[in-house]
Amino acid sequence: MILYVVPALGVLALVYTWLRSGWVSRQPAGEERMRTIAGYIADGAIAFLKAEYRVMVLFGLMACAFLFYLGSTGEKSSPVIVIAFLIGAVFSALAGFIGMKIATKSNVRTAQAARTSLSQALNVSFSGGSVMGMGVAGLAVLGLGSLFLVFYQLFVVGKGSANGVEMETALEVLTGFSLGAESIALFARVGGGIYTKAADVGADLVGKVEAGIPEDDPRNPATIADNVGDNVGDVAGMGADLFGSYVATILATMVLGREVVARGDEFQGLSPILLPMAIAGLGIIASLIGILTVRVREGGNVQAALNRGNYVSVLVSGAFSYALIRWMLPPEDLTIRGITFNATGVFYAVVVGLVVGTLMSIITEYYTAMGKRPVLSIVRQSSTGHATTVIGGLAVGMESTVLPIIVLAAGIILSYECAGLYGVAIAAAGMMATTAMQLAIDAFGPIADNAGGIAEMSELPKEVRERTDILDAVGNTTAATGKGFAIASAALTSLALFAAFMGTANISSIDISDARVLGGLFVGAMIPFIFSALAISAVGRAAMSMVQEVRRQFREIPGIMEGTGRPEYEKCVAISTHAAIREMMLPGAIALLVPVVVGFTMGPEVLGGTLAGVTVSGVLMAMFQSNAGGAWDNAKKSFEKGVEIDGKMEFKGSDAHKASVTGDTVGDPFKDTSGPSMNILIKLMSIVSLVIAPHIAAPERAVAQQNTSVQVHKPELKAQLRRATPRENLFSAEAFFHLMRHL
Amino acid sequence: MILYVVPALGVLALVYTWLRSGWVSRQPAGEERMRTIAGYIADGAIAFLKAEYRVMVLFGLMACAFLFYLGSTGEKSSPVIVIAFLIGAVFSALAGFIGMKIATKSNVRTAQAARTSLSQALNVSFSGGSVMGMGVAGLAVLGLGSLFLVFYQLFVVGKGSANGVEMETALEVLTGFSLGAESIALFARVGGGIYTKAADVGADLVGKVEAGIPEDDPRNPATIADNVGDNVGDVAGMGADLFGSYVATILATMVLGREVVARGDEFQGLSPILLPMAIAGLGIIASLIGILTVRVREGGNVQAALNRGNYVSVLVSGAFSYALIRWMLPPEDLTIRGITFNATGVFYAVVVGLVVGTLMSIITEYYTAMGKRPVLSIVRQSSTGHATTVIGGLAVGMESTVLPIIVLAAGIILSYECAGLYGVAIAAAGMMATTAMQLAIDAFGPIADNAGGIAEMSELPKEVRERTDILDAVGNTTAATGKGFAIASAALTSLALFAAFMGTANISSIDISDARVLGGLFVGAMIPFIFSALAISAVGRAAMSMVQEVRRQFREIPGIMEGTGRPEYEKCVAISTHAAIREMMLPGAIALLVPVVVGFTMGPEVLGGTLAGVTVSGVLMAMFQSNAGGAWDNAKKSFEKGVEIDGKMEFKGSDAHKASVTGDTVGDPFKDTSGPSMNILIKLMSIVSLVIAPHIAAPERAVAQQNTSVQVHKPELKAQLRRATPRENLFSAEAFFHLMRHL
Repeated sequence: MILYVVPALGVLALVYTWLRSGWVSRQPAGEERMRTIAGYIADGAIAFLKAEYRVMVLFGLMACAFLFYLGSTGEKSSPVIVIAFLIGAVFSALAGFIGMKIATKSNVRTAQAARTSLSQALNVSFSGGSVMGMGVAGLAVLGLGSLFLVFYQLFVVGKGSANGVEMETALEVLTGFSLGAESIALFARVGGGIYTKAADVGADLVGKVEAGIPEDDPRNPATIADNVGDNVGDVAGMGADLFGSYVATILATMVLGREVVARGDEFQGLSPILLPMAIAGLGIIASLIGILTVRVREGGNVQAALNRGNYVSVLVSGAFSYALIRWMLPPEDLTIRGITFNATGVFYAVVVGLVVGTLMSIITEYYTAMGKRPVLSIVRQSSTGHATTVIGGLAVGMESTVLPIIVLAAGIILSYECAGLYGVAIAAAGMMATTAMQLAIDAFGPIADNAGGIAEMSELPKEVRERTDILDAVGNTTAATGKGFAIASAALTSLALFAAFMGTANISSIDISDARVLGGLFVGAMIPFIFSALAISAVGRAAMSMVQEVRRQFREIPGIMEGTGRPEYEKCVAISTHAAIREMMLPGAIALLVPVVVGFTMGPEVLGGTLAGVTVSGVLMAMFQSNAGGAWDNAKKSFEKGVEIDGKMEFKGSDAHKASVTGDTVGDPFKDTSGPSMNILIKLMSIVSLVIAPHIAAPERAVAQQNTSVQVHKPELKAQLRRATPRENLFSAEAFFHLMRHL
Repeated sequence: MILYVVPALGVLALVYTWLRSGWVSRQPAGEERMRTIAGYIADGAIAFLKAEYRVMVLFGLMACAFLFYLGSTGEKSSPVIVIAFLIGAVFSALAGFIGMKIATKSNVRTAQAARTSLSQALNVSFSGGSVMGMGVAGLAVLGLGSLFLVFYQLFVVGKGSANGVEMETALEVLTGFSLGAESIALFARVGGGIYTKAADVGADLVGKVEAGIPEDDPRNPATIADNVGDNVGDVAGMGADLFGSYVATILATMVLGREVVARGDEFQGLSPILLPMAIAGLGIIASLIGILTVRVREGGNVQAALNRGNYVSVLVSGAFSYALIRWMLPPEDLTIRGITFNATGVFYAVVVGLVVGTLMSIITEYYTAMGKRPVLSIVRQSSTGHATTVIGGLAVGMESTVLPIIVLAAGIILSYECAGLYGVAIAAAGMMATTAMQLAIDAFGPIADNAGGIAEMSELPKEVRERTDILDAVGNTTAATGKGFAIASAALTSLALFAAFMGTANISSIDISDARVLGGLFVGAMIPFIFSALAISAVGRAAMSMVQEVRRQFREIPGIMEGTGRPEYEKCVAISTHAAIREMMLPGAIALLVPVVVGFTMGPEVLGGTLAGVTVSGVLMAMFQSNAGGAWDNAKKSFEKGVEIDGKMEFKGSDAHKASVTGDTVGDPFKDTSGPSMNILIKLMSIVSLVIAPHIAAPERAVAQQNTSVQVHKPELKAQLRRATPRENLFSAEAFFHLMRHL
């Protein structure tokens, strides 16, 4: 029964998406000039998606061939994984498409609504965000829920048990869905990040600095590309990122759930596998309740309204989880890999996840908010020039890793104490339950930002821009907290995947004192550095092309500065699009190929070490870069209102402000390209590892398979059996020593 | 017999130091003006050392109290460790003092010699460097060798065997020597790094930028502090760093050597313990031979002369090691922790170490040298402003981690394949054998730099400055390669210490899939970030005080700009001194206390995870920061000769050059403060862990002790015994689960 409820909740979310999207479409879109500009932005966004999807089809075909080969040869796999992969990719692309469509519809309608009132503008922009959030959650739950239903019928019913190898195959095939989703997220996040910053930096360097025209001036040929970038990077990129985390978390918890032995549940032992899907399903209802509470009066506090909605959804989701756990799980005597826990422990793990998510958002906000110590310290250092501004921001970024890491480490340890590795995964699932609400809040920011741009370009009255500026300022904060949440979710998701990987690859420990594992740890930890370097350089190169194109247009198009000649916006859009797609290839290839190469040549333990390295270093680099960028951004914004440095007021245009602009420009690729890409990197490498896990598992897996109960209940014995058999990999001498040691 | 040869070789090195130092002192020191300026620098350097040593005495007393407590309570320890600690600290301080003395003598004599010829100037400056190098190596070998002799008589002779618990105690006590050395290194490297950059940035910001006077102008009140800083940071800091690595590497190899079972050697089973000391001792001879080959004709290639000397010492050291290994070790049947290896494998491990050290230096040079792709890419990005210069350097720094990490990981795996964990340690020992030569080359750079400063301040003829500039340019390259070597040595040393820690703490595996270990890994990996943030901010704050003082002097001292009023150099020296000492407290406390707190509350496995995190992330951050800083520095220097960007020549004073100065200033604390501090951080945390290891080892250690052979030969069984007993630490629930799992 419950197997059908989950997809039904996904359908419910999609119905909301459809209805609310219709409501947004029916809002007035303003006068012709506004609609023309909005049309350019919408066309640019769709152009990017089309180009991106073309490349993805090519990539998808290669991935399908590889998966088909894997699926046909492995024992616990099936070629059906190709179908799961394709559906995951299509659903993820669809979620991006829905988000982009609604964002490019809501932006102009928000600008128009801002002519009436702030509350109306919030209503339109947040509705746009909620369409995106519900769309993502709905597609994820529908996809996972219905595919599980199908694969359960196909592989398990009438053939095996809830804990057996048949279920393992069903879940392995389901992993394809997650791989598809995360692969699309790679393109959306990395490509989108390069796109948006190339356009932004290019528009600023020539427009603001060289030509001296303001931001969002329609005379700047790169301004449309810049506004498209907000949608491509912040809406579609963030959406795909969270879609990926959401799916991967649920999936990893299900894989671990298979290893949980739940005596006496009423779901034929399926309850630990079904629980994460059920929590996600009811999380949609919790998000819906939260979304409905977001309302603000004219002159009211927009941030407070969003926070209220968020807390409501978190609390409701916690309550739902409690009820679900009580109903579904037997109260006592659950075990995973020899660790015993109870239903209350599982609930506590959910609470840990909710708390970690909330704390990470709060800490991120502190480090990037105007008027708080970190940003003020950068502002003060702006008075001594460019270099000290940069140094100040780098120091803030590095410092900002301390508290989140302690929260994260405590979260890992506590949730593990509650319910073993299943607890770590379920904490992630609890945190991600309100993804729809989180995304609604996140997507609202760029919509408001775009609305301001449209108001500026259409020369709407000043009070309109003032209202959209209020929304935009809140949007900057929600962008920061959203990034904190996205990093936390990526970290916990990767750990859940890591745990699932170990189970699927039949390894019970990853020993850092093994030199090969240690080597893997070093190499893994290096990957976020090279990935960041590539992403940052890509932005630099793409921005340079943009600068040259904008300079050319200013030089060659007659009347462009007087506003009589029309800039060729579409050429700038094309430059960003092509640069983004070309430049994401190499980092993408690294993320996808390193686990395959390491796994097949060095074996699962070394791959485990590599994953640990990537995850640890990736989380740190994500925080460092995102928070440094966010802090620089708000240090620069502080000058717009005026700030006091050593008793002297400094405003826009001062030397200190110029230094702060340098900081902001350095931070742009940090916070919008390389930083957020880390999330995808660590998740994608974990998912790829999980997909190949059955194919690189130790050969004596066959021994353990003869008796499934040994496999589940006596991991130590199994490990010894495994260790005692020489491994067929590059270092057979070492395997020989292992053998000697254990005889 | 060999027990006496090692200290004797140390004495030999010290005799060289004494003779060569006398020769340098007898060289002419030039006219009075030169001697006055050199006198200021020497006084400033000694003032810093005095202030530093005062704080260190206080710190030392606290450390002694703690060590005395540990030594009195532990089973495998002794209060004698306090004496070892004190001797280590005094020797390290003495090494710093010798280096500083000779450097402040050689600088002015190099300037004077440069009036005659380049070859004469090289001779004096390199002699100064070799005094430092031989002094460091001599003190280290003498200290370790004679203390081992004493402790061997005290604890082992007539009481136990070479592999027994008595030897374990002797080596544990000897660890105190290394702890003392590395603690002083912490102060020298971190304090020195803050000192030198506060003075440098302060002198540049007011002198060059505001007052428009050139570098090393005697009218600038901070200029003496700046020149003192070169000695404090680059001579004493680098010397203490390598002294620490050298001692720690030998010690860690000895600790692991105790675990090696060598059947049939002629040293009562002592040979694996004595080998690293013997390699270090003969390394002194090898270095001496290398030093004697460094000669250059007028107009000759200084870099080539230094490289030749270096390669000679590396090759001779390799040959000596081969002979030693053949002589000391039995050819076959060596085992460590169940892994069997032979004498040839040990020699191959030495070769791996030599190759890794050389490759790391070459790669570092590539990423920071003028005219190569990385630096050129930064130069090109300078043309579009401050922000792109900074972004370019950050990308280069991140990218520069790739090859060294691959070399390092390959080195770890290969040396492990050669001779297990003993191989990893002996690779580090082989690499460090030529430390005296490395330091001679490293210390030569700042001496030449200072000589140039003295020539400038004393207004010596132009050709003198030209000659010192040739030496200085070579010095910049050797500084870069020296940093690469220092990072490689710190990384391998930490891994050797890590392996020794595991043996001493009685743990046979550190499993990342244990949630607490994973939490430790995250927290450990975060520490280099907060440490860097603190170091960078410290430079910022200290530089601000310096700026204010210099501004005050320009304002208040009459005739200062005309050269008639004498600036108060000593006030600037005092500011740098106090800032350095104040600001190094917090980072120092983190490095010293984190292992103690984690070890005693969470147990040895979690501490192991923390150490792995610190090492991996610290090595990456060291490379990232040092190489980014070095690349920015040389990008700036490229403008001094003129560079072509997009077909246009750009020189000093252009906008692109100004942007490159911003990059260089950002890089200053990176490459000279936070980057090199990472070396000390990772080593110190490992040594502290090794010192406390017997005190946090699992309680059932007593069981294993009853039969030493069990302890040595059957680590797996021992681990199971240990695991089966509940641990007394914070998480007794988890310990309970462990118990359940194993019953």
